[in-house]
Amino acid sequence: MSLANRSLVTIDDLSNGEIEALFSLADEMAELINDQSKVCQGKIMASLFFEPSTRTRLSFETAMHRLGGHVISAVDIGATSLAKGESIADMARVVGSYADIIVIRHPWEGAARVVADYAGIPVINAGDGGHEHPTQTLCDLYTIKKERQTIKGLKIALWGDLKYGRTVHSLAYVLARFGATILFHPASGLGMPEHVLRKLTTEYKGELKRYEALDQVAKGGLFPIDAIYITPSIPHQLAMMPDISIQVELKTGVDALYVTRLQEERHTPAVERQGVKKDYPVVDKKLLKEKEFKRTLVMHPLPRVDELAYELDADPRSMYFKQAARGVPVRMALIALLLGAKEVTIPKEDDSFVQKVDYPIYRRDSGVRCPNPLCVSNQETEVRYINPEFKIVSLKPLTLRCIYCEHELQPQYIASSDWHQGMLENKKYHSADSWLVRRIKPGNLIIFDTKNEAETRGFKPSSYVR
Amino acid sequence: MSLANRSLVTIDDLSNGEIEALFSLADEMAELINDQSKVCQGKIMASLFFEPSTRTRLSFETAMHRLGGHVISAVDIGATSLAKGESIADMARVVGSYADIIVIRHPWEGAARVVADYAGIPVINAGDGGHEHPTQTLCDLYTIKKERQTIKGLKIALWGDLKYGRTVHSLAYVLARFGATILFHPASGLGMPEHVLRKLTTEYKGELKRYEALDQVAKGGLFPIDAIYITPSIPHQLAMMPDISIQVELKTGVDALYVTRLQEERHTPAVERQGVKKDYPVVDKKLLKEKEFKRTLVMHPLPRVDELAYELDADPRSMYFKQAARGVPVRMALIALLLGAKEVTIPKEDDSFVQKVDYPIYRRDSGVRCPNPLCVSNQETEVRYINPEFKIVSLKPLTLRCIYCEHELQPQYIASSDWHQGMLENKKYHSADSWLVRRIKPGNLIIFDTKNEAETRGFKPSSYVR
Amino acid sequence: MSLANRSLVTIDDLSNGEIEALFSLADEMAELINDQSKVCQGKIMASLFFEPSTRTRLSFETAMHRLGGHVISAVDIGATSLAKGESIADMARVVGSYADIIVIRHPWEGAARVVADYAGIPVINAGDGGHEHPTQTLCDLYTIKKERQTIKGLKIALWGDLKYGRTVHSLAYVLARFGATILFHPASGLGMPEHVLRKLTTEYKGELKRYEALDQVAKGGLFPIDAIYITPSIPHQLAMMPDISIQVELKTGVDALYVTRLQEERHTPAVERQGVKKDYPVVDKKLLKEKEFKRTLVMHPLPRVDELAYELDADPRSMYFKQAARGVPVRMALIALLLGAKEVTIPKEDDSFVQKVDYPIYRRDSGVRCPNPLCVSNQETEVRYINPEFKIVSLKPLTLRCIYCEHELQPQYIASSDWHQGMLENKKYHSADSWLVRRIKPGNLIIFDTKNEAETRGFKPSSYVR
Repeated sequence: MSLANRSLVTIDDLSNGEIEALFSLADEMAELINDQSKVCQGKIMASLFFEPSTRTRLSFETAMHRLGGHVISAVDIGATSLAKGESIADMARVVGSYADIIVIRHPWEGAARVVADYAGIPVINAGDGGHEHPTQTLCDLYTIKKERQTIKGLKIALWGDLKYGRTVHSLAYVLARFGATILFHPASGLGMPEHVLRKLTTEYKGELKRYEALDQVAKGGLFPIDAIYITPSIPHQLAMMPDISIQVELKTGVDALYVTRLQEERHTPAVERQGVKKDYPVVDKKLLKEKEFKRTLVMHPLPRVDELAYELDADPRSMYFKQAARGVPVRMALIALLLGAKEVTIPKEDDSFVQKVDYPIYRRDSGVRCPNPLCVSNQETEVRYINPEFKIVSLKPLTLRCIYCEHELQPQYIASSDWHQGMLENKKYHSADSWLVRRIKPGNLIIFDTKNEAETRGFKPSSYVR
Repeated sequence: MSLANRSLVTIDDLSNGEIEALFSLADEMAELINDQSKVCQGKIMASLFFEPSTRTRLSFETAMHRLGGHVISAVDIGATSLAKGESIADMARVVGSYADIIVIRHPWEGAARVVADYAGIPVINAGDGGHEHPTQTLCDLYTIKKERQTIKGLKIALWGDLKYGRTVHSLAYVLARFGATILFHPASGLGMPEHVLRKLTTEYKGELKRYEALDQVAKGGLFPIDAIYITPSIPHQLAMMPDISIQVELKTGVDALYVTRLQEERHTPAVERQGVKKDYPVVDKKLLKEKEFKRTLVMHPLPRVDELAYELDADPRSMYFKQAARGVPVRMALIALLLGAKEVTIPKEDDSFVQKVDYPIYRRDSGVRCPNPLCVSNQETEVRYINPEFKIVSLKPLTLRCIYCEHELQPQYIASSDWHQGMLENKKYHSADSWLVRRIKPGNLIIFDTKNEAETRGFKPSSYVR
Repeated sequence: MSLANRSLVTIDDLSNGEIEALFSLADEMAELINDQSKVCQGKIMASLFFEPSTRTRLSFETAMHRLGGHVISAVDIGATSLAKGESIADMARVVGSYADIIVIRHPWEGAARVVADYAGIPVINAGDGGHEHPTQTLCDLYTIKKERQTIKGLKIALWGDLKYGRTVHSLAYVLARFGATILFHPASGLGMPEHVLRKLTTEYKGELKRYEALDQVAKGGLFPIDAIYITPSIPHQLAMMPDISIQVELKTGVDALYVTRLQEERHTPAVERQGVKKDYPVVDKKLLKEKEFKRTLVMHPLPRVDELAYELDADPRSMYFKQAARGVPVRMALIALLLGAKEVTIPKEDDSFVQKVDYPIYRRDSGVRCPNPLCVSNQETEVRYINPEFKIVSLKPLTLRCIYCEHELQPQYIASSDWHQGMLENKKYHSADSWLVRRIKPGNLIIFDTKNEAETRGFKPSSYVR
C-alpha cells in the first residue's frame, strides 16, 4: 500500500496499521542505514523552522541525506518572512513548487495544517506551538514497542509540563489508540489542557478518572497523579475502577516514565510568576529506587534541563538517547513512505480502542472564532484567507473543536438559517442549551458567540434565550 | 556559445539573444526537471544572503540541487562578518577560492558588482539593495513570454512601490530593450527613481512622457499613471503621442499588471511618516473587472502583503505562483550556463530597441563621491579599497552615473589636468556648465563636487565659475 | 596507518609525523580536487557553529562536499539550545547518533573536548573561545611548508592580538614542535597569555627569553617584540643567547609575519577602555620595505580589519588568500583521515624538539576549580556533569593545568587522603609550597583553593600552613 502524497499533521493522520507498517520499515532502515542512498535520490526536502530547533531539524535532514535526497533549509525564519508580512499559505505554495516534501515547525498552533492545505506536496508537522509533534511521538512509540514488544496493556506515566509540552499531547492520543493506560503527573499548574483530556474521552474507548488533589493517589505510595486514563485493555477489576484497585494494579509497576522539561519559551509571564520552576518534579536515582520503577523505561524527548538527573545516563532503564537515535530511521521510513519511494503492507488493523466518530463540520461565517490566541486562524497575516472551521463534537453542551489547533469552545447562542416562510419576524436566535439545538438540521445551524453578533446579523432573541 | 565564467550583476549583463537562449534552455529544464542531476555534478554553489530571504534563496538552492550540484549557504550573515569589520571584497576572494559559483544578496547597492570583481568565479546578483534583482526579472520576463509568446509591443503596467522595489528597476530596463511600452503607476510618493527614468531615455529608443499629477490620465477611465515609456515598436499614432491617442491605445487593454508590495524594510523614517501605507493601491476583483484588464496577466514578485487580494488566487489571469515556480527552471538554466555545463545557440539578436552608447569612464580621485548613502562605494569597510568610478553619461548638464549603484550626480566644477605650460597661475577650475567642459579632453577632465575640494587640490577659480 | 575515529581538539592531538602525512594527502587532494567525490560518499558531517563564522564553516562544508559527503549544519545556535538550557554533552550525544563526524565552534574554552568526550564519533575543533583553532593552524603550517619546504630553523613573528587570538596559540605550539624560533610582537596589553608561554617552556626544548619593555629589542632596528622562543635548531651562537646575537641573527630576516586582527568580540569592557584599538600595529607597504622583511611571507588567518593594508594584496609575499584557499584541501585530508576513508604512511617522526612529559592527573572533588570564567567546566549548564580535572604540571610551585581550557592555577593548600592511622587529629592540611608536596603520593594528594574549603572538609591547619 502506498502512503504517497499524504501529510502527517497530527498523529491521527496515520492509522494504527500504518504506524505498525512504518515501524517495520524503520527496522529495515535501521539495519542497513548506509544502504538507503538510492531510495529518495533526486528528491528535495524543504526544512522550514520558524522556531529554534537543532535536534529535530538535524534528525530530519540526516534522514533525508541517508535516503540520498537533498535538503533546502530555512532556519529561524520567523523574523524573515513575517517581517515582510507574508502568510504561511503563500509560503507553502511557493516552497511547494520548489521541493518534493516539506517539514515545518511553527509557533502557531494549526500552522502545519495550513501548510498541508496549500503546499500541494506532502507536509510533515515538526511541531506546531503547543499543539502536536507527531514525529516525536512516532520515535517515542517506536522505542516503547522495541523495548516492550507491544503497547497494549502498558501503564505509562506522563511527567512534568503537560500543559505546554506538545509531545505529550500527540503521545497521549496514540497511547490511548494502542490500548495503554496513561497516568498524568503534571508539575503544579501545568496539567493536560482540558481539550486534550476531553478528546481522550470522546475519541477512545477508555475512561478518564480525575483526582481533585495532586497528592490524592500519593497516599498509597505511588507518585502523585492528577488523572488517569484507563484503557479497556487492562484487567476487569481495574476497569471497575474503585481507587483501591487502581493502586493495587499500579504497584505492579509503571512500564514507562515519560519526562518532559518545563516549556519556558511558551509560558506567559503569569505562569512565570507562579514560580512553577522551583517545585518542578525531578527524576533521579532516588526516585527510581521505588519498586514500581524497577523495570520502567525512562524516556524524555530532550533537550532536558534539570528534571532528569545526569546520574541516570548510564542506567540501563534510560532510553532518552536511544529515542533520539531512533529518530533517524523512523523519519527515514516516514519520508520514504510519503514520497512514495517505499510501499508497505498494512497489517490487519486493531482499532478496538478507537471510537469512530464523524463529527459534523461548522464553517459558516457567523463571527465564531477559535478562543486560542496562538491558533493560526487568529493571526493577522492569516485572517486574510482562513475562514474559521470547527467540528461539532457535542450538542449538549454545544461544543466546537477548532480544526486547526483542536482547542474547544462552547458558544452560547444558535439560530437556524431556515426561518419559517422567510418572514423576518421568525428570524430568531436561541440559547445553545435549549432543546432547539437538536431540532435544527446541522446544515442549517448558525452559531454565535455573543448576543451582539446575532443581533448585528439581524436575529432577534427568541423565548429560548436566557 | 558558452556563457561560462560570466557574471549576472545587472540585467544588462545578458544580451537579448542570450536571454532568449536562456529561456529555451529553461524550457528544456522544466520539461525534464528530474533528469538534470548530472549537469552540475560535483559543482558547489555558495549562497550568501546578507539580507533575509527565504523564497529567492530556496529557489536558487533547489535549482542547484536539481542540477546535481552542492550548496554551501550563509544566511543572515550581516551580523557575522560585518561585526568583524570584514570587507565584501575579502569575503568574495575567500569564498571564490572554495566554491564554483556565488549567489549574493546584499543590502548595499552595487555590492554584487564588487563581489563579481573579486571572486574570480561567476557571481549572480540575487538583489543588491534597491538597485537590481536580475534573476527575478528573468522569471518575470519568462512568464510573460510563455503566456504571450512575445514582449514586443506589449503594454505593461508597473504598480506600487516603484522607488524601493528593485525588481521593477531591472524589469523596466529589460521591457524597454524587448520593445514593450511601460506604464508607471506608483503609490503616492514612491515613483521610479530619477536615475532609472533617465536611464530609460538614454539607453533605449522609446520616449518617456511624464504627467504632472498622478490622476491626470485617470480622467479617461484608465488607472492613474505618473509616466509612460512608449516603445517605438507600437503603432505610429501612439508614437506621435498626443495624450488622446495614448488613452485610446491603452483602452485596448493592459497586457500585464506587475504589482509590488511596499518595501517597508528599505524605507526611511521620513517615508514612514508620510503614511504611504494607508493609501497604497490595491489590486482586487473589483479592479480587474475593468475592461482594460480583461486579458491582463496579474503578476507579483512575492511576498505580497495587502496590495494583492487573496480572492484573485484562483483567477486564471493570476500568474504570481507560476512566476515563483518558474524561478527554478530559469535559475537552473542560468547556473548551468554560467558554470559552462551547458552551451546555447544564440538566436539572431534583435537589438532594435537598444541605443548603443560607450560612455567615457571617470575614475580620477578628485573627491567626487556617489550621492547614494546605500552605495557599496560609501561603506566604511569598503572605502579602504574601492575608488569611486563613474560613467560620464552627459556633458550638458554634466552627469556622472556611479558604476556600482547607477545613481547619478551632477557635479558643479571641472578642471583640466593639462594646464597650459604647467604654470601654476593656469591651474584653474570652472563651472561644469561652461563651454569648457567640451574643450577639455576626456582623459584630462577633473571633476569636483565643491569649490572647496578644487581649492584644496590647488586650483583657483577661473572666470568661468559662477 | 589509520587515523579513523580520532578527534582533533588541540593541535597536539596529531603528532609531527601525522601532520606531515596529512600534508601529503592534502597535496593529493589539491591536485585532483574534483576527483575526490567518492572518498566520503554517504557520510554525514554535522557542522555546529555556536559562534558566528562564515569562512571556517564554508571551508569545512566545501571540503565535505568535494569528498562527496553530506552536511547538516546548525549556525548561530547559541540562542537556540542554550535558551532551552541544554548541555553540550547532551547535544554531542544526540548529534553523534545522527552524523558520522562533528565540526564544532563554540565560545567556551574546552567545549570541543567535551563534545569529543561524549559524541562517540570523531570531532574537529573549529575554534573554542580563545583556546585553540587547530585546523587554522594546519592551514597556516601547510602554507609555510609549501613556501619554505621546511619549518625547522625558520624565524616566525606572531603579530597583533596574541592574548585573545586562538589561532596564534595553536600555531605557537606547533611551530615550537617543528623547530621554529618564534618572535612575539603583541599589540600593547595583548601579549600571549601566561599559560601559553609557560606551556612553551614545559613541553618543548627551546628557551623563552622575555623582554621587560616592548621597545627593548627595537633599538637594534628590529620591530619591537616582548618575548622570543628560541628553538634549539638554530645556530649555537644564538642559543647562547646574548641579546646582541639575537639581533644579529634576526637581521638575516624574518621568514613569516603572522598578523592577527584585534579580537574585539572577546574583549572585556576593561580592555576596550584601554584604547587598544588606536595604537594597534599595522602591516603595510612601508613596513615591508625594511630589509628583514625582504623575503617574509605575510600571513593572516582572516578576516582582517585595518591591521593589514589592502595595498599589499598584489604583493608576491602576501599569503593570506592562499592560506584561505588551502583550507579546503587540508580539511579534506583531515576529514577523510578521521572518517577512515583514507589511510596514510607516517614518515619517521622527528620529535627532537618535543619534551615528552606524562603529567599526573588530579581529578578529586576538593573544590578546586579552573580560574578561567570562559572554561566549559565553569558553565551553568555543564557543571551538572563535568568534574574539574587537571594535569599537575609542576610541584614547585604547585601548578595545575585545566584539561579543558589549559589555563593554569597555583592552589595554596594540600593534604593527604592517607592520614596516619585514620585518626582525626592527623587530618591536617598544609601550605602547597611546603616540602610535604613531594612526600604525599600523587594518588593521595588532595588540593584546596582556600583554607575554608579545607576546613569545610574536616581538615585542620598543620604547622606547615603559613
